[in-house]
Amino acid sequence: MQDLLEILNLAGTFAFAISGAMVAVQGGMDIFGVMVLAFVTAVAGGVMRDLIIGAIPPAAFQSWHVLAITVGAALLTFCATRLVRRLQHAVQFFDAAGLGFFAVDGTQRALVHGIDPVMAGMLGLVTGIGGGMVRDVLSGRKPLVLSSGFYASAALAAVAIVLAAHAMGIAAAGVAIAAVATCFCLRVLAIYRGWNLPSAPADARRS
Amino acid sequence: MQDLLEILNLAGTFAFAISGAMVAVQGGMDIFGVMVLAFVTAVAGGVMRDLIIGAIPPAAFQSWHVLAITVGAALLTFCATRLVRRLQHAVQFFDAAGLGFFAVDGTQRALVHGIDPVMAGMLGLVTGIGGGMVRDVLSGRKPLVLSSGFYASAALAAVAIVLAAHAMGIAAAGVAIAAVATCFCLRVLAIYRGWNLPSAPADARRS
Amino acid sequence: MQDLLEILNLAGTFAFAISGAMVAVQGGMDIFGVMVLAFVTAVAGGVMRDLIIGAIPPAAFQSWHVLAITVGAALLTFCATRLVRRLQHAVQFFDAAGLGFFAVDGTQRALVHGIDPVMAGMLGLVTGIGGGMVRDVLSGRKPLVLSSGFYASAALAAVAIVLAAHAMGIAAAGVAIAAVATCFCLRVLAIYRGWNLPSAPADARRS
Repeated sequence: MQDLLEILNLAGTFAFAISGAMVAVQGGMDIFGVMVLAFVTAVAGGVMRDLIIGAIPPAAFQSWHVLAITVGAALLTFCATRLVRRLQHAVQFFDAAGLGFFAVDGTQRALVHGIDPVMAGMLGLVTGIGGGMVRDVLSGRKPLVLSSGFYASAALAAVAIVLAAHAMGIAAAGVAIAAVATCFCLRVLAIYRGWNLPSAPADARRS
Repeated sequence: MQDLLEILNLAGTFAFAISGAMVAVQGGMDIFGVMVLAFVTAVAGGVMRDLIIGAIPPAAFQSWHVLAITVGAALLTFCATRLVRRLQHAVQFFDAAGLGFFAVDGTQRALVHGIDPVMAGMLGLVTGIGGGMVRDVLSGRKPLVLSSGFYASAALAAVAIVLAAHAMGIAAAGVAIAAVATCFCLRVLAIYRGWNLPSAPADARRS
Repeated sequence: MQDLLEILNLAGTFAFAISGAMVAVQGGMDIFGVMVLAFVTAVAGGVMRDLIIGAIPPAAFQSWHVLAITVGAALLTFCATRLVRRLQHAVQFFDAAGLGFFAVDGTQRALVHGIDPVMAGMLGLVTGIGGGMVRDVLSGRKPLVLSSGFYASAALAAVAIVLAAHAMGIAAAGVAIAAVATCFCLRVLAIYRGWNLPSAPADARRS
């Protein structure tokens, strides 16, 4: 079980870093910018969570392992952009698994630090989507997650499962796996079916 | 007195959340994005302050109350955009009161944590304007407060009153009320009279 | 030695503040926005580092000195924009010295707080380039440092020297001076020679 969660962590970190690196390459950044965006996309959500719950230094700064994974993803994307793009489908699968893992892991860490359960769920969500938001701001575009929100909904479903188990006093590792699997399936379904959340009708937007 | 300050806190949180939600609706975000922007606008300034003074977890993450208020404001804005827009005048009044309260409350919290008084005032200002700056960055526009600065000046006036009372050793709750009222009146006057701060002449801007 | 480092700190803070103020003036911000951008550019990198290593309150908030320097730089830039622009060459020299100092000082502070050496180097880099990144985001443009990366490479060279000395157990103040000097020389050379890092070929960028 613990091994499976560790694999999800690595796969998610790698996929998030790839997504950051790809945005950087498309934005014409140089190799340094590609590495920065890969690292920031993979760790910013978790760093925000750790600062808020008081886990100092944040997990991503406790060893050089996460940095190494993200630099590897950045170099791969930079040197073999077309290959990575052709594998985009596989990367999306990793990304869906990583989103679920980060949301579940973030919620659990916040609960361990004694945060109010609802806000712990919020911090799980921050862990899952925070990195992508910083990636988009640094590359000069509006955060995708705010206008194509089914991405966040899949993470919210995973968070809800963790919080329900917490309220019922269930602490089995199986809960985390079930929650990640739910997020993963919802995310993959959303990609194939083009699901989206409603936005306000266009005539309501005029200022 | 304490009740009045609590009401100001709620009114300000609600008004800030409405302003974030409105920007999100106008930017074409979906219902999730509207909720995120409402929450972030209401709490980002206070969270920055709490991280800097070491108040962990930040006030907005100690219970689900602030989240509930901002989600309510987001749903109202999303479902009844035109109504909220017609009430924009009332929202601006709440916003002016909230700005004053956040600036005063932020300054006082920083002083309690032993921060140097001048920097405590800076943190009061951050509490008041930080959320709006993050709102603007996330919605892809330059922070309004940096180019139409009388907004910040009203908050600075409130901060100055709190610091003057602190320097003179006056700790009455009346000081906070007076400071908030000053900010409120300046802000309302600025709206009606179109007050602004000077910017550099256009010919100085060429790079 | 200690005096020299203190002078580098002041010169760097001043130069970073000038660069923030100049961007604000060119972006048409008012006097308040110019002061905010000057302050943020000078301190944001160090504040991020201090939050991550747990040095609370961050150095820039322990006294009003840094604020005073940045407000001075902002007023100078606002009132004498043309003069400052004519002195841009001198400002770039200060900026190069400040970049080196911030990178070295940030790395050393992280090491003192027991951070893993590689990640301490990362935090030195954050100290050096974080402020400029926030400046660019707040003024609505993509962070320059991500697409013209030799700026960061000069800082990385300084960080590498500090880390090498740390690994060999050398703790002399001369190491810091040598590292800052290396960064300074590389940066000045890069400006005069137009050095840059490679970016991905244009045909790889199509999404």
